[in-house]
Amino acid sequence: MTPMSPRTIGVTELVLRDGHQSLLATRMALEDMVGACEDIDQAGYWSVECWGGATYDACIRFLNEDPWARLRTFRELMPNSRLQMLLRGQNLLGYRHYDDMVVDKFVEKSAENGMDVFRVFDALNDPRNMARSMAAVKKVGKHAQGTICYTISPLHTVEGYVKLAGQLIDMGAESICLKDMAALLQPQPAYDIVKGIKDRWGDIHVAVHCHATSGVTFISLMKAIEAGADSVDTSISSMSLGPGHNPTESLVAALEGTAYTTDLKMDRLLKIRDHFAQVRPRYAAFESSVLVDSTILTSQIPGGMLTNLESQLKAQGAGDKLADVMAEIPRVKADAGYPPLVTPTSQIVGTQAVFNVLMGPYKRMSAEFADLMLGYYGETIGPRNPEVIAIAQELVHKEPITVRPADLMKPEWDHLKVEANQLPGADGSDEDVLTYAMFPQVAPGFFATRDEGPKSVAMTEAQLAAAQEGQAAGTPGITGPVKYQVSLGGRSHTVQVEPV
Amino acid sequence: MTPMSPRTIGVTELVLRDGHQSLLATRMALEDMVGACEDIDQAGYWSVECWGGATYDACIRFLNEDPWARLRTFRELMPNSRLQMLLRGQNLLGYRHYDDMVVDKFVEKSAENGMDVFRVFDALNDPRNMARSMAAVKKVGKHAQGTICYTISPLHTVEGYVKLAGQLIDMGAESICLKDMAALLQPQPAYDIVKGIKDRWGDIHVAVHCHATSGVTFISLMKAIEAGADSVDTSISSMSLGPGHNPTESLVAALEGTAYTTDLKMDRLLKIRDHFAQVRPRYAAFESSVLVDSTILTSQIPGGMLTNLESQLKAQGAGDKLADVMAEIPRVKADAGYPPLVTPTSQIVGTQAVFNVLMGPYKRMSAEFADLMLGYYGETIGPRNPEVIAIAQELVHKEPITVRPADLMKPEWDHLKVEANQLPGADGSDEDVLTYAMFPQVAPGFFATRDEGPKSVAMTEAQLAAAQEGQAAGTPGITGPVKYQVSLGGRSHTVQVEPV
Repeated sequence: MTPMSPRTIGVTELVLRDGHQSLLATRMALEDMVGACEDIDQAGYWSVECWGGATYDACIRFLNEDPWARLRTFRELMPNSRLQMLLRGQNLLGYRHYDDMVVDKFVEKSAENGMDVFRVFDALNDPRNMARSMAAVKKVGKHAQGTICYTISPLHTVEGYVKLAGQLIDMGAESICLKDMAALLQPQPAYDIVKGIKDRWGDIHVAVHCHATSGVTFISLMKAIEAGADSVDTSISSMSLGPGHNPTESLVAALEGTAYTTDLKMDRLLKIRDHFAQVRPRYAAFESSVLVDSTILTSQIPGGMLTNLESQLKAQGAGDKLADVMAEIPRVKADAGYPPLVTPTSQIVGTQAVFNVLMGPYKRMSAEFADLMLGYYGETIGPRNPEVIAIAQELVHKEPITVRPADLMKPEWDHLKVEANQLPGADGSDEDVLTYAMFPQVAPGFFATRDEGPKSVAMTEAQLAAAQEGQAAGTPGITGPVKYQVSLGGRSHTVQVEPV
Repeated sequence: MTPMSPRTIGVTELVLRDGHQSLLATRMALEDMVGACEDIDQAGYWSVECWGGATYDACIRFLNEDPWARLRTFRELMPNSRLQMLLRGQNLLGYRHYDDMVVDKFVEKSAENGMDVFRVFDALNDPRNMARSMAAVKKVGKHAQGTICYTISPLHTVEGYVKLAGQLIDMGAESICLKDMAALLQPQPAYDIVKGIKDRWGDIHVAVHCHATSGVTFISLMKAIEAGADSVDTSISSMSLGPGHNPTESLVAALEGTAYTTDLKMDRLLKIRDHFAQVRPRYAAFESSVLVDSTILTSQIPGGMLTNLESQLKAQGAGDKLADVMAEIPRVKADAGYPPLVTPTSQIVGTQAVFNVLMGPYKRMSAEFADLMLGYYGETIGPRNPEVIAIAQELVHKEPITVRPADLMKPEWDHLKVEANQLPGADGSDEDVLTYAMFPQVAPGFFATRDEGPKSVAMTEAQLAAAQEGQAAGTPGITGPVKYQVSLGGRSHTVQVEPV
């Protein structure tokens, strides 16, 4: 029975961050987004995700764009919207733990430049790795969203996820995100986890983030909504599906006539759709070819990880060992205490599985895997195999730790500042220090060329036209139906010719 | 609360018919399907859709394949499966009404060659157009599935669809299909209609067929299942989504842990998937570029129809009139008694809307639109506009009818037989007479060339490699043989041209 007044479900639009990150290798330039910002701002979204580690990295690595300038532009063009970012807890946007003061600085500056909602996560779901950044967000009066990374293992249970939500709430989370980066979240667990959180922890806002890769998760979003989810993540249809997300307009239509509604303005959505439909083909070089990847449904190994392993194996002349490696991964995962397989743990576990297959179990070990075994990434859900810990200890000459990894960090802001400001082109701002802190290899080059302004990697309209013409050439010569008179064996026929 | 033993949902696999029809313009050759047949046969499907009007047409028009031989091959390779076809009621697989005896013959021969389940539909949902073929199916002891074509209009209601289901059951339908060819079926009506049929008509088997085009319908399938649907249609993931269907493996995963299950064998599904993943790229020339088309969600005008209208208008130098035509379509639809917009009514209504905009309301009328107004396609759900009927009557000098259109047909089997058997290459079989009856323009050419055997229009592996190389190189020039579509005497051939 539909109630008189449907419950409004908030929508987080992903196209400006995770949408193009997942579909176009994060290559979209700001200039290709600004034209859609007014419509996005007016469409009625709960929030607009527009910033994160990969977009920051791509800005300085590929696009010669200042990511902070990008953020300020979004702030200016979308004055009515909650701007949202994805923050890797104590790693911020980088690939290591940072000292707490760097964390504070980063959050402060992000808020100052316009960020509203901070979705804070940790690859191991270790709350200690999220605590400081969440506290920093609250200190500057912004929205701290605590995140549960969803995965499947013998130790991951609905009850465990519900408990984790409680820990995040205790740490001050204003909302909880159930984040399914591998498209593993099936409808029933989606329902059960959201229902569990709502039943146990009362009125806390629950957001659900799913990728579409496995083709399963559109139903999971619906089930999460039925279980009480307050908002869900989607991406505008012209930048949806495949390794990306479920389409925004389709969600709106799916809820019509039900006990739920989105309050999104469809006329605005169609304009946003058309904008990105026009932009997308110019990034064709960065498109993934995968549309639905059902492998993960049986192996729990993300498709992208499998592709990487395959090329790793081929490079070592062991392309025939893929099945062995796929069988080894669950063992390595178990030895490592069942970490979720996401960046960076997916690479770390995958590479170790390759080593084990090619050279024998733990005969060789990467420094990263040793660190994972020794606790330097944080706490895992399950105990780690003591024998493998002993091997790791011997190999890298480090002691296992049980404290929060960042507790071992020394203050680093001052020397980061000195180092950053010595770089040619650095402007002395805290923002530049943070860029250097996050990406020390890439920042120097970016500072040096920043003056030259943004350099899009998209095709120009002219290049696109040429490429499309070239594609039709599979069929040079004719571009439309043409009629000819053809004589064959003394008989005359009218023949119509058109490109296939 | 999940019951102890989940309810099993049947699955109809679409890849051999509607899957490649929707994604690859029906061009897939039998030789590219046979390799998957054993796995399909063993996967545990409720039925395997593998035959219909478009595949029959494509066989003789493009592939030089005998569609009856294709059916017999399927029968032989899938001895454990229910083979299923789509049948356009009194139109059979053609584009006009046939005399009842032709209908009987067609059904008899189809059953004889291996068909099990006949999904019978009519574009106008006029039960009189479905009655004879359903009776014929029952007479040969096969499964007659009565079909409801889903559409949205002021006159189409849940109650109306439920009543129609009752009429089909009274006519002997062993099951009911709710068929959503335009991806219009939203979750709530999907639930309400299936629930209505189950509540009113008891234990009748209900099947649900949806396209994925709008990105909405995966949830609709789930809601239909929750409402009691017994089977749903999907296509293997490597041949899914876009203008096609929701992915089979994703359905399996979506139901895991719920009160429903599919009993499909995932290891078989992954093999089927891999087979078609390998086949599909060789048909790249026939791919549609649309992935999600959300236009239909607001306009109820199918995306394909819109594209056709656009090119029709452009060809007449009136490309700026599209918005006017889109506004005119609902008026024409109302005048015509609200027919669903599917083949052929979508073309008929669309073209009339173009005429009305360019030349004034009903100043010009196509013969087909006149026939529709005068009842020659069957009964519409709503009354047709008497003023427009009068214009139609005057234009084509025909009287309006209220009888079943096929009642006006004269017996035609005998003269069809004589005509068919005179054609060079015809083998004297009833099957050949039926091929001639369905496609009189195309059959002669096919009979003449049948001896030469199947002619695939797919790229060879070598051509595919060359094309991929060319694409990777970004070279717009020609890197391999070029294929043209050549029409000669009503038949289409693919001709390959390469430098000597």
